[in-house]
Amino acid sequence: MNNLSEYLVMIPGPTNVSHRVMQAMTTPIINHRSDDFRVLYKQVREKSQKIFQTENDMIILTTSGTGGVEAAVVNLVRKNDKIIIPVNGEFSSRLSTMIENAGGIAVRINSNYDEVPSIEKIEEAFEHNKDAKALYVVYNETSTGTRVDWLNKAADVTSKYGAYLVVDAVSNLAGDDLPVDKWNIDICITATQKAIAAPPGLAILSVSKRAKEFMINNPPNTLYFNIPRFLKYYEQNTETPFTPSLPLFFAYNEALDMIIEEGLENRIKRHKICSEAFYEALESMGFKPFAKPNARSRTVIAVNYKDGMDDKKFRGLLSKEFRVLVAGGFGELKGKVWRIGSMGDVNRYHVLRTLSAISAAAHMLGIRIDNDGVSIADEKLKSLNH
Amino acid sequence: MNNLSEYLVMIPGPTNVSHRVMQAMTTPIINHRSDDFRVLYKQVREKSQKIFQTENDMIILTTSGTGGVEAAVVNLVRKNDKIIIPVNGEFSSRLSTMIENAGGIAVRINSNYDEVPSIEKIEEAFEHNKDAKALYVVYNETSTGTRVDWLNKAADVTSKYGAYLVVDAVSNLAGDDLPVDKWNIDICITATQKAIAAPPGLAILSVSKRAKEFMINNPPNTLYFNIPRFLKYYEQNTETPFTPSLPLFFAYNEALDMIIEEGLENRIKRHKICSEAFYEALESMGFKPFAKPNARSRTVIAVNYKDGMDDKKFRGLLSKEFRVLVAGGFGELKGKVWRIGSMGDVNRYHVLRTLSAISAAAHMLGIRIDNDGVSIADEKLKSLNH
Repeated sequence: MNNLSEYLVMIPGPTNVSHRVMQAMTTPIINHRSDDFRVLYKQVREKSQKIFQTENDMIILTTSGTGGVEAAVVNLVRKNDKIIIPVNGEFSSRLSTMIENAGGIAVRINSNYDEVPSIEKIEEAFEHNKDAKALYVVYNETSTGTRVDWLNKAADVTSKYGAYLVVDAVSNLAGDDLPVDKWNIDICITATQKAIAAPPGLAILSVSKRAKEFMINNPPNTLYFNIPRFLKYYEQNTETPFTPSLPLFFAYNEALDMIIEEGLENRIKRHKICSEAFYEALESMGFKPFAKPNARSRTVIAVNYKDGMDDKKFRGLLSKEFRVLVAGGFGELKGKVWRIGSMGDVNRYHVLRTLSAISAAAHMLGIRIDNDGVSIADEKLKSLNH
Repeated sequence: MNNLSEYLVMIPGPTNVSHRVMQAMTTPIINHRSDDFRVLYKQVREKSQKIFQTENDMIILTTSGTGGVEAAVVNLVRKNDKIIIPVNGEFSSRLSTMIENAGGIAVRINSNYDEVPSIEKIEEAFEHNKDAKALYVVYNETSTGTRVDWLNKAADVTSKYGAYLVVDAVSNLAGDDLPVDKWNIDICITATQKAIAAPPGLAILSVSKRAKEFMINNPPNTLYFNIPRFLKYYEQNTETPFTPSLPLFFAYNEALDMIIEEGLENRIKRHKICSEAFYEALESMGFKPFAKPNARSRTVIAVNYKDGMDDKKFRGLLSKEFRVLVAGGFGELKGKVWRIGSMGDVNRYHVLRTLSAISAAAHMLGIRIDNDGVSIADEKLKSLNH
């Protein structure tokens, strides 16, 4: 087996997790129905509100991100509810299926995968579906490295039609602008293993007062993802209805502390600069980012392969010879793009090591590239103040 | 904050987790779509088959036990399916609600909470509901410390009616007799934080060929708990459809090794002896187990409070002065019983320390008890060969 501690994990989640957060998992097991847990739970909820920039209720589920997104669907979507949803990749496509699974009518606004449906298209869809109940948006499409650039204006549209605004921010919350209250987001979902830089296994949701009222009055047909039940257990006893994954709670708590110590604004800026360093450097090397410029993610860098570059060989070299892990394409992009997760603890070292390994691996495969990329990134990264 | 490493965690899950298993969680993060994970996943599946004593397919979900149980419902129960279910506590009651949530008709066979509906009652229910699709059984009722003593005969009944047999063994698999293939169990569910002695956050299910065929032909309306999707991803790529909680996989893998090293039979015997030591010692101290003798769990010891014993005071003393954590009653048994989790790594030290603390705490509360309990347990525990 490989020496796993040599890996630089640059996939779009799970990301590298700091020693400090990893060690927090070994905190001894406690009784999850005792004050030891209540103190932890309360802290974690309050700190979660900080990184979501919200005063809304917080739900913490022991599940992967997809489970969190499913919870955001089954607690709000009821039979024949019309839901408007931009679709430009695997995760938005899955989300529209989940909406249909829940009995809803998914009004899909499609675009090419390298861009994002415009806000005008969304408005148009509401104009044609005035009774639409909600707009579900995947803020950052992990599968294509695209990002919705009009999320700050989404509530202007939804509020006009009295619709809910639900945002899947699994792969960018804490690494991208996302002031939940300012942007009037009813449900916002993220997971621990992306920009938060904790291990996978928890999903976190914020729920607005209005969404909460709906859920309490129309409880969902699920026990495990039952948000009203989570709210009730918190309000009555500061407990979770089901056994929480305690080690993951301790780790998430530590990761939250690290975010607050760094400062959320600094962290978001760091993600922006690192992603820009990646895009500029890769372009100078002659690689083409998959996403169009105005749709580029700040946490997931999807890059087109050059002619003659084999996905398996390239990523194999990166992993085997340089211990740098990047991801392949997803769904119909398999073999056509590779993806870098530039999130979580990402910093100068991560960017420079990844770029130098990419450059070297490309050379080893006989691909001619301009070698200035690393210096360009280095220059760009100088604006990081920490 | 208390020094958490001083706790002896004797609640009915999560249990104490050994240093070795805790440390496994700090294994560096890997790519969950790489051979590093595939090797792990395959091993974990094969070892899971050993502790389930089955050749059936295994599903490993990042979720608490309740999520695993919900998966066993939503993948099998369809609208108007009649499901027979013995109900004698909180968890079997919840399970019957989950069946109804899924559109099924729950045919509840109730009994008092200190016993278990008889197999004759189950047969009778099938006689009156010949078209029943399945029998769902909670093998070990964590809320009442009761255990079904006819599970080995359940398939004789279900096979007569062509019904599926589904077993919730969340709180006793790996600590009690449960040969899945020998007993013809179609779906068996457990979770990591009970008798397996790993941290909470994974649920494990075995799925028979017949149940698998049904699910593939009638896929459920859930994405996160979609068993056919898990089967497909395993068969095609030895991967999970959604990001698995890697630290919990590493920990579970280590816990499986420890079970296999001990020997499953030895482990089951150890649980039996430890539970008997608890029952005999507590009875000699004048405490009355809540469950009737033939319905007593081998992993969860529920005990009636004596007159004048206050739940909060008693468990508070145990926790504060002796750092021994036991659980209170659940639902309608709140304040009437306390519960000891005698599972996982439970051994002489755990039993004797717990009993001595109980004895001392009772004395401190002015409760007269016969003090021979510890010696009686000591004697009983001599038959442990390790």
